[in-house]
Amino acid sequence: MSDRHDTVRAIEWRDDHLLLIDQRLLPQESRYNSYDDPQAVADAIRAMVVRGAPAIGITAAYGVVLAARGRYTALGEGWRSAIAADLDLLAASRPTAVNLFWALERMRRLIATLEAGDPTPALLAEAERIHREDVAANRRMGELGAALITAGAGELLTHCNTGSLATGGYGTALGVIRSAYAAGKVARVYADETRPWLQGSRLTAWELVQDAIPVSLLADGASAHLMKQGGVQWVIVGADRIAANGDAANKIGTYAAAVSARYHGVKFMVVAPTSTVDMSLADGSGIPIEQRAPEEVLSLAGRAIAPAGAEAWNPAFDVTPATLIDAIVTEKGVVLNPTTEKMAAMMAS
Amino acid sequence: MSDRHDTVRAIEWRDDHLLLIDQRLLPQESRYNSYDDPQAVADAIRAMVVRGAPAIGITAAYGVVLAARGRYTALGEGWRSAIAADLDLLAASRPTAVNLFWALERMRRLIATLEAGDPTPALLAEAERIHREDVAANRRMGELGAALITAGAGELLTHCNTGSLATGGYGTALGVIRSAYAAGKVARVYADETRPWLQGSRLTAWELVQDAIPVSLLADGASAHLMKQGGVQWVIVGADRIAANGDAANKIGTYAAAVSARYHGVKFMVVAPTSTVDMSLADGSGIPIEQRAPEEVLSLAGRAIAPAGAEAWNPAFDVTPATLIDAIVTEKGVVLNPTTEKMAAMMAS
Repeated sequence: MSDRHDTVRAIEWRDDHLLLIDQRLLPQESRYNSYDDPQAVADAIRAMVVRGAPAIGITAAYGVVLAARGRYTALGEGWRSAIAADLDLLAASRPTAVNLFWALERMRRLIATLEAGDPTPALLAEAERIHREDVAANRRMGELGAALITAGAGELLTHCNTGSLATGGYGTALGVIRSAYAAGKVARVYADETRPWLQGSRLTAWELVQDAIPVSLLADGASAHLMKQGGVQWVIVGADRIAANGDAANKIGTYAAAVSARYHGVKFMVVAPTSTVDMSLADGSGIPIEQRAPEEVLSLAGRAIAPAGAEAWNPAFDVTPATLIDAIVTEKGVVLNPTTEKMAAMMAS
Repeated sequence: MSDRHDTVRAIEWRDDHLLLIDQRLLPQESRYNSYDDPQAVADAIRAMVVRGAPAIGITAAYGVVLAARGRYTALGEGWRSAIAADLDLLAASRPTAVNLFWALERMRRLIATLEAGDPTPALLAEAERIHREDVAANRRMGELGAALITAGAGELLTHCNTGSLATGGYGTALGVIRSAYAAGKVARVYADETRPWLQGSRLTAWELVQDAIPVSLLADGASAHLMKQGGVQWVIVGADRIAANGDAANKIGTYAAAVSARYHGVKFMVVAPTSTVDMSLADGSGIPIEQRAPEEVLSLAGRAIAPAGAEAWNPAFDVTPATLIDAIVTEKGVVLNPTTEKMAAMMAS
């Protein structure tokens, strides 16, 4: 499953435990934490031990496995009613990424069909299926997205981390970049550092260095100046939730990059599996935007970088309107200049 | 000279020494370093003990005083030929801010007129005049710029630090903000944190907290999302060099804010004294953009935030074209929708 340009995995089920690489410690330290109850899994999602919309969904699915095993061991057939609280707990961990709710719903549907007896094997098989399907979707999106990139394009720009650390493996936007790089279409990847959490510096650069793909970091504010130089062909990003019309919520700073891309005639691609598409929302105005603690902006690596008395405004996501998006790539296909009609056709395909 | 909303000074001449507040240590520590030779002053400018275009110019002028005193003490009348090397040293400290060259040229012109004898008193008087004139220009720009802001406007956004720390005192863009706040026109100042050097978090927030003006920091990437909310009336920034047509070089990230401001119908104001205007350059394409060390992006406060092997692209400035600027405010007046003709008329006034 992995090759020279795809060596990293963030989520593993091993010896009846869930292992998550602690993304708060990267790149200084690669430590896997072990989880065996759903409360700890929900806390890990909230604290961003694991982050990235598809990775959150997969993690939550394994969380349901742990919940069912714990409840069945304690209560026998009473697990069915007791597990509702665990599902609610996992659902409350983060609000924006719809993959979380999608994965929980899929596990809930399976639960409703289970016969009497230990539910663990069937739920584990389903979680592993979600995990495998995500990697397969990423591989497919990698091919579809890379096909949009002109040979010899040279430079791509990405924001946040959408790679193996954000998914079951390979990545969404970073999967497209991996695929385009393997096809010889990319000379250099520019990665926004992505304040406040520095997913670009800490995670994307780490993955790309692991996988021998040339990467240059830049301050988020520098990306408009970079686009003005003329070398960047595509900005390629992931999504945490895509509305029915193609409006896409993603890490704060994505919208600024989209505005700049349009101003400079640089193309803008959103790469996400269909589990990220929320057809229940007509447009992006209905997507809940998580506000995170001011401390993420006011400090860095535990050190205060602002004076006492300063406040901070810290939305974790923003919404890029479909009108600024040239292509949405899912495992079901490519939607150019997305509209509600085109998105519906893709989802139904 | 100072009041409740203007208490900070970065540069002082005291007891025959130049004192600079060490801006690398703020906001954790307010330490003044003492300088008595031009090499140390040039090093301080390069290392960003002092930064901000007007502050660099004033500091360089005091550096010439120290150079002249040292050369005269050592060489007597030989100081006149020996000081050329000191002027070159100071001029080589940073490339983008034209105030540096402007201040050195003004000192050089005075040197050419000096009679025999100790040059120190006359040069010190000139440096202090440059310093005083800068504060007076800032006060005047504060009034002119604040007059452009509608009463009850509520929210302003600024980038980098353009306050007392960046100037002789009071500030350029931050002087306009101070003046507008004192006039009751501003409910809240939003300040981009301004990576990589965090001038917004470390310096602007510190000044505004000292001076009891409400400030919210935000990640640079969040400013487009903020503008989309609709509350921001003006983006107000400084400049390091303004070309004859009104194109303005300023801290990296300014151009991104200008692109977003235009997209959202938010007005964009550049505030700088005429010492920042370089009439020898027809447009911004001739402004040299300083590239600084990758380590500023790859680390923070001495701690690595990116993996070994990652590179960084770290331009310190970008150029905002005059077409994206609604108003340039200097001490000589306001230029709306700047053009070469309007700039020339303002400079000649």
